Amino acid sequence: MKIAIDAMGGDFAPQAVVEGVQKFLSEDQETKIRLFGQQEAIEKLIEPSNQLEIINTTEVVDGNDEPVAAIRHKKDSSLVRAAQDVKEGNSDGYLSFGNTGAVLAAGIFVIGRIKNVERPALMPTLPTKVLNTFYNMLDVGANAESKVKYLVQFAQMGSIYASDLRGVKKPIVKLLNIGSEEHKGDELHQSVYQELKQLKEINFQGNIEPNEIMDAKADVIVTDGFTGNAVLKTMEGTMKTVLHLLKDSLMSGNLKTKMGALLVKGSLGNLAEQFNNSRFGGAVLLGVNAPVIKGHGNSQPETVYYAIKQVKEMIQGQTVQKFKNLYE
Amino acid sequence: MKIAIDAMGGDFAPQAVVEGVQKFLSEDQETKIRLFGQQEAIEKLIEPSNQLEIINTTEVVDGNDEPVAAIRHKKDSSLVRAAQDVKEGNSDGYLSFGNTGAVLAAGIFVIGRIKNVERPALMPTLPTKVLNTFYNMLDVGANAESKVKYLVQFAQMGSIYASDLRGVKKPIVKLLNIGSEEHKGDELHQSVYQELKQLKEINFQGNIEPNEIMDAKADVIVTDGFTGNAVLKTMEGTMKTVLHLLKDSLMSGNLKTKMGALLVKGSLGNLAEQFNNSRFGGAVLLGVNAPVIKGHGNSQPETVYYAIKQVKEMIQGQTVQKFKNLYE
Repeated sequence: MKIAIDAMGGDFAPQAVVEGVQKFLSEDQETKIRLFGQQEAIEKLIEPSNQLEIINTTEVVDGNDEPVAAIRHKKDSSLVRAAQDVKEGNSDGYLSFGNTGAVLAAGIFVIGRIKNVERPALMPTLPTKVLNTFYNMLDVGANAESKVKYLVQFAQMGSIYASDLRGVKKPIVKLLNIGSEEHKGDELHQSVYQELKQLKEINFQGNIEPNEIMDAKADVIVTDGFTGNAVLKTMEGTMKTVLHLLKDSLMSGNLKTKMGALLVKGSLGNLAEQFNNSRFGGAVLLGVNAPVIKGHGNSQPETVYYAIKQVKEMIQGQTVQKFKNLYE
Repeated sequence: MKIAIDAMGGDFAPQAVVEGVQKFLSEDQETKIRLFGQQEAIEKLIEPSNQLEIINTTEVVDGNDEPVAAIRHKKDSSLVRAAQDVKEGNSDGYLSFGNTGAVLAAGIFVIGRIKNVERPALMPTLPTKVLNTFYNMLDVGANAESKVKYLVQFAQMGSIYASDLRGVKKPIVKLLNIGSEEHKGDELHQSVYQELKQLKEINFQGNIEPNEIMDAKADVIVTDGFTGNAVLKTMEGTMKTVLHLLKDSLMSGNLKTKMGALLVKGSLGNLAEQFNNSRFGGAVLLGVNAPVIKGHGNSQPETVYYAIKQVKEMIQGQTVQKFKNLYE
């Protein structure tokens, strides 16, 4: 089993990526890592291992690169070379913390779409307000335009992932919509609702409204890429704002409040930790010919470590093969 | 100046509505209130005033009523009769805290759309993370389907409202989209971007991403009703979840944390207050023939009081006439 990793993507690359790889290799004896990036810089950061191969690349895709142009013109970038490695059969899975659009483009155009999958979808695993309870949401932004058929496949693929990778029996699938009744929403969502109702292989339980997303009412939330991306970014922004206001509110209070703030500081840290993405790995690009994971750009070594484990589990679980069985 | 108020809508009706009216009348000497609802119940809750007329109605629209059916069949409901009153010219503005869909339907079908307004839009005034700084967002759910032309009019109407009612000079208008560059998003949002760029009368400053909504970067945020509704509900749900988790996290901590929690309790209350909708009144239905305000269903008397003031300001500001000048 071999995993191709882009060492140069993310805010703290290559150091955070390399340290995450090091941690993974210190625990795992069977997986081979093929690490793409500036060989010299990487070698300084990691101990040699017979499970590790470093492949030198001369270009880096950065956050400002236009995704499709980056794929076309930066052929010797770590992001593209790692994808090419999977395409050529040298690696079984792909991981990058770089430019989201470019990672999606590499997954879709280099590694390639599974035959008869209409559109691949980007899917994170996210925490609910209930401890150790999660949900998958897809698509969160691989597609700006959507059709009924895309969302139906998202429901199928998301359900298989939740069942196989997270061990949820008969995952509850819900459709993200602006009302709970089946006639609510626009034509797209009304039609998707009718199609999902017919699908025997998934446990579809109707609409979920965006204010209930974190209430642990669904294992898989199906949405179009525009709404999914908007909702995910809204959650991020709101959480950041509330915690920021809370800090302000505490520090500008009277002496009593300030003393209290000092006492609860650790507890606030725990809260932030609960929403920290480290334990949930990265977002999966479902519907392409190999496991492709896009980790968060601000990932620290621990997040990198969990994301590598996630790629490994998808390879072991043969998730991609299950999608192929369904569609090809 | 006369305002028609539905006394029977909202979670605490008629008491909260009537108390809000009482508070308003205790301060205002020029505005007449026409209060629709169960006369007997209302009379027990309020002091007589020559500025107040109570009009008895025999039906109530509740949260489970299908909006358009409610408008058609519950002709003697307080929600419909108050709208009819505006339609007939007896009142100059409308306020209800009831079933959102029914209030929108009453506004659109009873009070009526302004000629050449494609679609009325629902628009709340919301707090940013900066104290005493607000933004308007529209449409947040009057329309599930959207066309380019609708959003262009939303930008024009929202800009006039922010300038007239909130006193913002040259309001910064931004388009809610899933990327900052002008080519981002689906075809709808790309086309709207191009149209807004051409409009001389508004101060359009490009896209805003959903994670920046509360950062006080825009005075008016233009969005399609599906995305706007989803984003608004996501903000509500996330805030509720974070505060809930914070309380849990504090109360399950050790003795030190618990003591701290007691000390900061007041401060947490302040935070909730900052997001409390009481001071921002209700959401306006822009594009109909009179000021129509939908207050939050959980409104307390203070919120009712502010919502009445908001209707009064819209009447005084002749906002509706300005829209008519623009479109008719």
